[in-house]
Amino acid sequence: MEKAFVECVPNYSEGRRKEVIEAIVEPFKNRQGVYLFDYRADEDHNRLVVSLVGDPDSLQEAIIESAKIAQSHIDMNNHKGAHPRIGAVDVIPFTPISGITMEECVELARGFGRRYHEATGIPVYYYEDAALKPDRKKLEVIRKGQYEALKDEAVSNPERQPDVGGPALHPTAGATVIGARKFLVAFNVNLGTTNLDVAKKIASYVRASSGGFCHVKGIGVALEDKGMVQVSMNLVDYEKNSLYRVLETIRMEAKRYGVPVVETEIYGMIPAGAILDSAAYYMQVADFDPQQVIELRLLKLMGEGLK
Amino acid sequence: MEKAFVECVPNYSEGRRKEVIEAIVEPFKNRQGVYLFDYRADEDHNRLVVSLVGDPDSLQEAIIESAKIAQSHIDMNNHKGAHPRIGAVDVIPFTPISGITMEECVELARGFGRRYHEATGIPVYYYEDAALKPDRKKLEVIRKGQYEALKDEAVSNPERQPDVGGPALHPTAGATVIGARKFLVAFNVNLGTTNLDVAKKIASYVRASSGGFCHVKGIGVALEDKGMVQVSMNLVDYEKNSLYRVLETIRMEAKRYGVPVVETEIYGMIPAGAILDSAAYYMQVADFDPQQVIELRLLKLMGEGLK
Repeated sequence: MEKAFVECVPNYSEGRRKEVIEAIVEPFKNRQGVYLFDYRADEDHNRLVVSLVGDPDSLQEAIIESAKIAQSHIDMNNHKGAHPRIGAVDVIPFTPISGITMEECVELARGFGRRYHEATGIPVYYYEDAALKPDRKKLEVIRKGQYEALKDEAVSNPERQPDVGGPALHPTAGATVIGARKFLVAFNVNLGTTNLDVAKKIASYVRASSGGFCHVKGIGVALEDKGMVQVSMNLVDYEKNSLYRVLETIRMEAKRYGVPVVETEIYGMIPAGAILDSAAYYMQVADFDPQQVIELRLLKLMGEGLK
Repeated sequence: MEKAFVECVPNYSEGRRKEVIEAIVEPFKNRQGVYLFDYRADEDHNRLVVSLVGDPDSLQEAIIESAKIAQSHIDMNNHKGAHPRIGAVDVIPFTPISGITMEECVELARGFGRRYHEATGIPVYYYEDAALKPDRKKLEVIRKGQYEALKDEAVSNPERQPDVGGPALHPTAGATVIGARKFLVAFNVNLGTTNLDVAKKIASYVRASSGGFCHVKGIGVALEDKGMVQVSMNLVDYEKNSLYRVLETIRMEAKRYGVPVVETEIYGMIPAGAILDSAAYYMQVADFDPQQVIELRLLKLMGEGLK
């Protein structure tokens, strides 16, 4: 049987105390089935973002262990930081990578939420694909007013009660938002002009909020050092809105202004499927199977061996 | 430290007796560090081709175990088959996949050759990048006259002596050719015409033997069922002659005849690097690092964990 791999990016409300940050990530190191890709603390945001990939069981165990450490060190009543937050462990999103569907990932997130609450006593809100109520799909709706407002409203307003536990938030750790979402690809297209209007117009043609592709967010920004402008995007569903389709649409629109695509940037991580899909398009490869890629086949066989 | 992964495709002179075939591949199953991708026996060729990926140490052990089984079942004096061969275990090529250079892979092949000879008593010839003499780079030079001629010439002609052991071949298992080579990518481009001359001409423009790309082999063939013709190629160094460069050259040449590229085929396995390279070209991605691909990063971290 194919082993499931899931990405999880827990966010903690601690970006300043080095020893606390190290204690929080310790459970992710040298642990069978858990691979720590990256962790970054931001002092202004006073926030820690951890990138993990692993098998669902090992990940869940490690995250609960880490959350207990965060809970013992962070008091939301004293926490200040530029980034919106409602809890010591603020958000825990799960993303399917391979061998697991989005539906299974939603079940995983909901099951984890119950287990997490039992282990820590921290109430849970479900968001994105794991949301139980349509308006809770959006993180900003759950986080409205942040910890300071939510600790009262969770009790006084039934609309704002947690999905698991509560109604009162945890007295020091607040609440945690847990969910399942698709992998978000950060993709930028740099154009050979200094005219910012061109990037802004093109961003408006491709993004969902102005009627473009349904799963693209985007803005136009100036790159003064480079003497270019950029269409800066998040692809929130790279399977429905492929990179190549978005790129070629931008190229086509830029032509109207006599502006070339100079280069593109893939910022941060990207799933292999997103690249293979575009490579197969440009190279016109018929019936390409990702399992023809040696490394992907090897990863699958190694995963099976571990099970 | 990064773990090394190597591909190895041993070829055995047995394609008919099912129980012998299964006995030969048994050492590759359920073995730590060895991943059996595929094995195919051909009755006409009377030959078994096994595709393995793994860490160098585990692979070497498993191959020696398997070779001893082949040696005990195959007598070259009774072997008949359409495919050229000089031994019960005919060829053992090693190919670097990740975390290992070609130079290291050559050392691996030569060290393995000595160890293999000690364990089995079978003499060894080194070929491709592991060749000790320039004319032995080519398999067909070593295999000239096949087992039947070589068993005499190895003794009578110093030019044909094995590199390790000998000069007499093993009385039943013959000799084995061991080497290191780059990964070979089978890449076909199908053209929208039934005129075979177009495919033949274009093949001659891109292949090394007619002065094209130095690491491309290719012929033109008719695809009668599809009503197309094909430029059928082996890219023997996909790093020096990228898929996109070969494809775009074919597209450019086909235009002269008003013929479109209808589709392409990647036949069999392909290393991730070969695809990423072409994807980055078409998408104009600046400074793309393969470690940005989640699955490749995961594979690297899993490899480190196993060490």
